[in-house]
Amino acid sequence: MTQQKSSSGLAGVVAGTTAICTVGAGGENLHYRGYAIQDLVAGDCFEEVAYLLIYGELPTVPQLVAYEQRLISLRVLPEALKNVLELMPGDTHPMDVLRTACSFLGNLEPEGKQRDQYQIADRLLATFPGILLYWYHFHQNGNRIDTQSDEDHVAGHFLRLLHGEAPKPEWERAVNISLILYAEHEFNASTFAARVTAGTLSDFYSAITSAIGTLRGPLHGGANEAAMALIEQFDSPEMAEAGLRRMLANKALVMGFGHRVYKVSDPRSDIIKQWAKTLSQDVGDHVLYPVSERIEAVMQKEKKLFPNLDFYSASCYHFCGIPTELFTPLFVMSRITGWAAHVIEQRENNKLIRPTADYTGPAPRAYVPIGERPVA
Amino acid sequence: MTQQKSSSGLAGVVAGTTAICTVGAGGENLHYRGYAIQDLVAGDCFEEVAYLLIYGELPTVPQLVAYEQRLISLRVLPEALKNVLELMPGDTHPMDVLRTACSFLGNLEPEGKQRDQYQIADRLLATFPGILLYWYHFHQNGNRIDTQSDEDHVAGHFLRLLHGEAPKPEWERAVNISLILYAEHEFNASTFAARVTAGTLSDFYSAITSAIGTLRGPLHGGANEAAMALIEQFDSPEMAEAGLRRMLANKALVMGFGHRVYKVSDPRSDIIKQWAKTLSQDVGDHVLYPVSERIEAVMQKEKKLFPNLDFYSASCYHFCGIPTELFTPLFVMSRITGWAAHVIEQRENNKLIRPTADYTGPAPRAYVPIGERPVA
Repeated sequence: MTQQKSSSGLAGVVAGTTAICTVGAGGENLHYRGYAIQDLVAGDCFEEVAYLLIYGELPTVPQLVAYEQRLISLRVLPEALKNVLELMPGDTHPMDVLRTACSFLGNLEPEGKQRDQYQIADRLLATFPGILLYWYHFHQNGNRIDTQSDEDHVAGHFLRLLHGEAPKPEWERAVNISLILYAEHEFNASTFAARVTAGTLSDFYSAITSAIGTLRGPLHGGANEAAMALIEQFDSPEMAEAGLRRMLANKALVMGFGHRVYKVSDPRSDIIKQWAKTLSQDVGDHVLYPVSERIEAVMQKEKKLFPNLDFYSASCYHFCGIPTELFTPLFVMSRITGWAAHVIEQRENNKLIRPTADYTGPAPRAYVPIGERPVA
Repeated sequence: MTQQKSSSGLAGVVAGTTAICTVGAGGENLHYRGYAIQDLVAGDCFEEVAYLLIYGELPTVPQLVAYEQRLISLRVLPEALKNVLELMPGDTHPMDVLRTACSFLGNLEPEGKQRDQYQIADRLLATFPGILLYWYHFHQNGNRIDTQSDEDHVAGHFLRLLHGEAPKPEWERAVNISLILYAEHEFNASTFAARVTAGTLSDFYSAITSAIGTLRGPLHGGANEAAMALIEQFDSPEMAEAGLRRMLANKALVMGFGHRVYKVSDPRSDIIKQWAKTLSQDVGDHVLYPVSERIEAVMQKEKKLFPNLDFYSASCYHFCGIPTELFTPLFVMSRITGWAAHVIEQRENNKLIRPTADYTGPAPRAYVPIGERPVA
């Protein structure tokens, strides 16, 4: 039996083994299959990271070329899926769009003899941008966009479908880097949900659908949107400092800071902060980035908390012209790679994930037939 | 840190507290909120059990009447949801139908100021039979059925929509009892998945969608269908014994026996076995029930394993004219009550559920730029 307090959300409890990722070694490190996140970012190619996670090793040039071509060939959406996206209300939460669309794609293209887990992983990676942006443009302006593009990379494909024009190179690079940073994070809640689902030997889509629904919450993927909401309410660093101090005095939860596993710092934050700074200068921003830096300083001084990946991702995405409500879906477009790797791994040595609970309810009690129950 | 081996699927690890259910006390007991399952079955009303689980106490007569009326009033499906059910292929896995439909209903009727978690729980409980059987009849025979009925109870409503006529009283009672037995089971995998999803403060539909996808697997909800497939391949007890012994010799997994938590017996099995026997006599069966009893005897003798709820539920449902592929969806129509209770409870004292993992992958290694990687 565990020595953990049962209310601790399994913090520090080992729930399984993994060969995919280490998080927080030394309080501040992140490795995907042995490679430091800083090195993978320097490689500057989300698709090679996706390949590494799903297929186990970094690709060679021919492997990467073939992989990118395969992803490009998988971008077209089935008509029935487009119909479902049109049937969704325009004010649907974008994460609900992805959750339902992933589940529905599992109805149209089920796992089985015709289609294995690797093909489904590739298909989801290829289609999530088109799914989200088909729904988005249809309900924003009635346009049924073509979800095919000849962009080589997921980042460029997403930006082209969003803006309807060739992506600016620096925006594409920033989004590409963010996709690398968001791709994988060990037994985080959404990945763990995917493994719990896969642990009953359910199908691949069920596991990914669970993960999307879990990532949706503000304590997980929703944090980058919450960080944006925090940052953009202030017009200056001084206002931010005053407002943040009021929040802290009121014991409000400040999203985008601290982490259950990293104890020293989040190595991803330094990387995305640099991009937020660069893009801020490019677009002539004099508010969001200075406000962000001030919030970081106050959180460090008052709470000894460091920014996590979500905090500077928010302004970074904002500078790329990405609407705030699409931030968490972008997380999906990246993390699908880590989720896929974990589902594949869970299946290799599967064991049903079924913990137990401490009971705190009524002791055994006599059943009173309904006619004899007192009516208050 | 836990003392459990990390590959053990959290068996015996306490992952939280609950006041809803105890499973396996003394190796063989089941209580919902302090009431023994045998007493709740004697009460003979799934709706009062649903009320007990979701609202915390057994209802009085006026409360139960109001609750049943409310459920009846919530049976009509939105047109857009019916469109989506029609867009699903006819050979979709019925659990995928429920998973997608639950997720899509969350797009149409999202949780928020207009609709709280109790209303959504009631709505899902009321609509799952109609969702499943609208899809089923449309693709079986092109009929767009009316999902409203004036049946008082979920069991009768399901059977009426399935068979298109007033349910036979003994079938309705058997299904009603099975719904009571399947309603709740502590931190089983699907419920735990719902709590992991709810733990990020995601919405109610996301949590239930995760649960459906998790229940789908053959190591969990799919076990009753697997049990049916086992039973119906034999034409006599003698053939069953010979076939089963061959399976055991080949170390095949026999579904419907044993349980991770019950160590002595599954108290639900005795109850549903009695119903399987009664219905077997009613329909003049001379094969399925005798075959089932022989399989039970061999498993007891050879493996010291007892039947769990899934084993005799299979023939019980079969005798009620329910197609095998709808067995696991029936589980959903019952367990939605337990899932709802657990999501509500998780939120009352929420903590993100985020375990950790033992790393077994490559040690930190140098990143080789793609142009320098050897091509095999």
